[in-house]
Amino acid sequence: MRQDHLITATQLSRADIEAVLDRARTIDDSPSTFADRYSESVLALCFFEPSTRTKMSFETAAKRLGADTIDMGSIESSSVKKGESLADTARVIEGYADAIALRHPSEGSAKMVSEFVDVPVINAGDGAGQHPSQTLLDLYTIRERHGLDDLTIGVMGDLKYGRTVHSLSAALTNFDATQHFISPESLRLPRSVRFDLHESGARVREHTELEGVLPELDVLYVTRIQRERFPDENEYRSVAGQYQIDAETLSSAREDLTIMHPLPRVDEIAPEIDETDHARYFEQAHNGVPVRMALLDALLGGTDR
Amino acid sequence: MRQDHLITATQLSRADIEAVLDRARTIDDSPSTFADRYSESVLALCFFEPSTRTKMSFETAAKRLGADTIDMGSIESSSVKKGESLADTARVIEGYADAIALRHPSEGSAKMVSEFVDVPVINAGDGAGQHPSQTLLDLYTIRERHGLDDLTIGVMGDLKYGRTVHSLSAALTNFDATQHFISPESLRLPRSVRFDLHESGARVREHTELEGVLPELDVLYVTRIQRERFPDENEYRSVAGQYQIDAETLSSAREDLTIMHPLPRVDEIAPEIDETDHARYFEQAHNGVPVRMALLDALLGGTDR
Amino acid sequence: MRQDHLITATQLSRADIEAVLDRARTIDDSPSTFADRYSESVLALCFFEPSTRTKMSFETAAKRLGADTIDMGSIESSSVKKGESLADTARVIEGYADAIALRHPSEGSAKMVSEFVDVPVINAGDGAGQHPSQTLLDLYTIRERHGLDDLTIGVMGDLKYGRTVHSLSAALTNFDATQHFISPESLRLPRSVRFDLHESGARVREHTELEGVLPELDVLYVTRIQRERFPDENEYRSVAGQYQIDAETLSSAREDLTIMHPLPRVDEIAPEIDETDHARYFEQAHNGVPVRMALLDALLGGTDR
Repeated sequence: MRQDHLITATQLSRADIEAVLDRARTIDDSPSTFADRYSESVLALCFFEPSTRTKMSFETAAKRLGADTIDMGSIESSSVKKGESLADTARVIEGYADAIALRHPSEGSAKMVSEFVDVPVINAGDGAGQHPSQTLLDLYTIRERHGLDDLTIGVMGDLKYGRTVHSLSAALTNFDATQHFISPESLRLPRSVRFDLHESGARVREHTELEGVLPELDVLYVTRIQRERFPDENEYRSVAGQYQIDAETLSSAREDLTIMHPLPRVDEIAPEIDETDHARYFEQAHNGVPVRMALLDALLGGTDR
Repeated sequence: MRQDHLITATQLSRADIEAVLDRARTIDDSPSTFADRYSESVLALCFFEPSTRTKMSFETAAKRLGADTIDMGSIESSSVKKGESLADTARVIEGYADAIALRHPSEGSAKMVSEFVDVPVINAGDGAGQHPSQTLLDLYTIRERHGLDDLTIGVMGDLKYGRTVHSLSAALTNFDATQHFISPESLRLPRSVRFDLHESGARVREHTELEGVLPELDVLYVTRIQRERFPDENEYRSVAGQYQIDAETLSSAREDLTIMHPLPRVDEIAPEIDETDHARYFEQAHNGVPVRMALLDALLGGTDR
Repeated sequence: MRQDHLITATQLSRADIEAVLDRARTIDDSPSTFADRYSESVLALCFFEPSTRTKMSFETAAKRLGADTIDMGSIESSSVKKGESLADTARVIEGYADAIALRHPSEGSAKMVSEFVDVPVINAGDGAGQHPSQTLLDLYTIRERHGLDDLTIGVMGDLKYGRTVHSLSAALTNFDATQHFISPESLRLPRSVRFDLHESGARVREHTELEGVLPELDVLYVTRIQRERFPDENEYRSVAGQYQIDAETLSSAREDLTIMHPLPRVDEIAPEIDETDHARYFEQAHNGVPVRMALLDALLGGTDR
C-alpha cells in the first residue's frame, strides 16, 4: 500500500487491493512461513465499542505473525472515563505499540487519530462510517469463489446504516462488477453513497424484492436488519420477514450462488442453509485472519521484508 | 485420550486419566522442555460467566507451552448481546483458534458446541453440569499425596449444586476409593448422581456430620455453601457454621490428612489451617497449570509429538 | 535492587534508583537485545481498579522482554465477587505467574500481598498510597532532560490526594533538588508528607500561585484537580482555573522548562502547549516501557543475567 494508515476502503486502488489479497493467498497457503515474522512487534487493540469477531480476528492475525497484542480493555475500565480525549489516549498508546487497530462510535475518529500519531492506524469501524479491513476480507472471499471481474452481486438488508455495505460497494467500483441493492424503501442506500457510485460509473440497480434478481446473482451479500431502527415492533417483523433466506427462497438461485454475511446474523438466514454449498459466511469470517495478517504485514513491514 | 474433546469427567477411563496425570507429572518435573512446543497454536478463551482461576489457569497453561491465547472478553463486550447463537459464535471462533475452552451457564452447552466445530472443545464448566479439567487437577493433587487407590475421601459442603463434586465422584469410580459425603440434608448429592455411583459399584456413604468419619479420611474435600441457596439468612448461618473447619475440628484427624477446596473459599476453612501441612488447596489450584498443559498437549498434538 | 518487591518509592535508595534508570537507558538504546530475555516468564496483571496507561505499559514492558502476561480481568468478572479475600486471590495467582503487578483501592494492599506470596509484587497503585513505578519513570524523564541533581522542580495541582506526587517528592530527597509545591490551600500536601520531607532535610517551599516561582523552575509537574473533591461545582471551576497552563502562562518560564503530567489530563494544560518543546508528558508516558522493562529485569532475573 502507498498509505501508512488504513482509514477507508475508498483510499484503496485496484492495485492496493490486489496486493493485499495476493499476500493473503500466500499466507493462507503456508501460514507457518509467517509465524515468527513480527516477533518484536506489538499491535494495540483499542475498541471503544463492543466487538467479538473483529477484535479476535485482529488478535489472531497479530499472534499468527508472531506479534504481541496489548488491549485497552473496555471503556469502563479505561482513562476515557476520567475525561481523557481520544487524541491524548492515542498519543500515549503510540508509545507502546507499533500499530493501532481502532474501533470507535464516532465517524471520522480513525482519520483524526491518524493525524496525531506516527504509527499505522487501522480503522476497525468508525460509527456509521467505514470498516475497510472487513471489505478486504469480503473481497478475498468473493475472489476465491468467483473472481472480482465479470461479477454480479446482490446486497440485501439494511443498506442505510450498514458501514460494511458502504465500504464494499465503493471498493467494488475498482472492478467490473454489477451491483444490485435489495432493501425496504426505508433502508435504501444513503443518497451520498448512491451519488458516489454513480459518479464512479458503477453499474448499479435498486430493488425492493429479491425474487426478480436472484437468478442472475453470483453472490448474495445479506446484512442484518436491526430491530432498533424501527419505532414499531410489528413493522420491524413484517419488513425483516421479507428479507429472510431459506431453502425455498433459493430454489431459483444459480447452483454456484455464494451467500455471504458479515455476521452476527439473527434470523436473516435459516440454519438449513448452513450445510449447503452456498453458505460461505463462516469461511468469510475465517478469511479475516489471513487478510488481516496481510494487512499488518503491509503496514508493519512492507512486502519486501 | 481417545476423544477429540473434553466434555465430561465420565467420558474418561482410568487409562485416560492416568495418561494425563503422568504427562502432567513429566511437565511439572521439567517445564522448560515444553516451553516452545506449541508456538504456532492459539487457544480461544470463551468465558460466558465470570471466572478468575480457571481462565487464568488455562491462559497460563497455554502460554507456558509457547501457545497464544485469544479472549472473547466479557459477554457485555461481545456479539452475544446482538443476539448471535452460541453455535454461530463457536463456528466463527473455530476459524481463529486451534482449541476452545468454554464456560457457559447452560448445562450441555459444551457438548452442543463440540458438535458444530472441528477443533477440540474443553468444557470449562457448563452450569450445574460438569467441569472435567477441575477433576483432573483434583485427581492429580490426590495422587501426588496418597495415590488414587486404597483411598478414603470425604467430600463436604454443598453436594447438591457443586459441579466440581459431581465430576470428581464420578471419576473416582475408576479407582479403589471409598467416598464419604457429608452435607446438610437439604444439600445432599442429587438422586441421579447417587444412582450413577451406585450403578458403578462405588463404595459410598452419606453423613450429616463430619465428626464420626473424620478419623478415617485420607482426604477431606471441602466446598463452599452458597448463601443464595437459602431463603433465610439465619438458616444459612446455622447450616454453614456446622460445616466449617478450624484447628479444633481437626484434633481427631489423621496426621497426614489432606484438605482440599476448589476455591474460592469464604469461611469454610479458618485461616489458621493455611499454615498447616494439611492445607493443600493453594497447591491444588497451582496444579491446574501442569494438568491443563498436559490436557492441551493431549488435545492439540498427541503425546508423540 | 536489594528488595524482592517494589512497594513504595521510599524503600528505594539513590543507588537503587540509579541502577534501574541506567538499565532503562541501556534498554532504550537497544531494545532488541532484550527481546527474548524472559521468554519463559509470566507477569500477572491484577488491576482491581480501572487503568489504561499503567496496565498497558506493564503489558508492553513484559512483552517487549519476551515474557507473557495473564490478566485477572475486571473485578466484575472475577472471584472477588464471590467474596474471596485478596490474600487468597494472590496466593492462587502466585502459582501461575513469576511476578504480580497489583493495583488496588486499599492503601497498604500491595504490602499485605507481598507478605503472603513468594513471587515479586509490584505496587501499581494502592489507593491514596504509593505508585513507585510511576515515580521511576518520572525520575527517568527528569534525568534525561536535566539530570537529577541541581534541580529546581515545581509540583502543581492536587497535592493532597495525588499518590504520584507523594511518591515523587519522597524519591527526590535522595538527590540535590529544590521542591516547590503549588496548590490551593485546600489541596496542600498532607501534613505527614510535609513532615517526612522536612525530616529528610529536603529543600521545600509551598505556594498558592505559580507566577512568582515559575521563572526558577527546570521542571513543572502538573497534576489534575478532580471535580469530585469539591462539594460545589462553582468552587471547583474557580480553583481549577487558577492552575491551568497555557502559552501566556509560560511567557515568564525558562526556555528549557520541561512540563510533565502523569496523565490523563483534562484541561490543566492547553493543547497549544503540546507542540512546544516544553511538553514532555507523552514522552514521559512512553518512558514507562523501558523503565518497567528495567524494573521487571531487576525483579525477575537480577542485573547479571
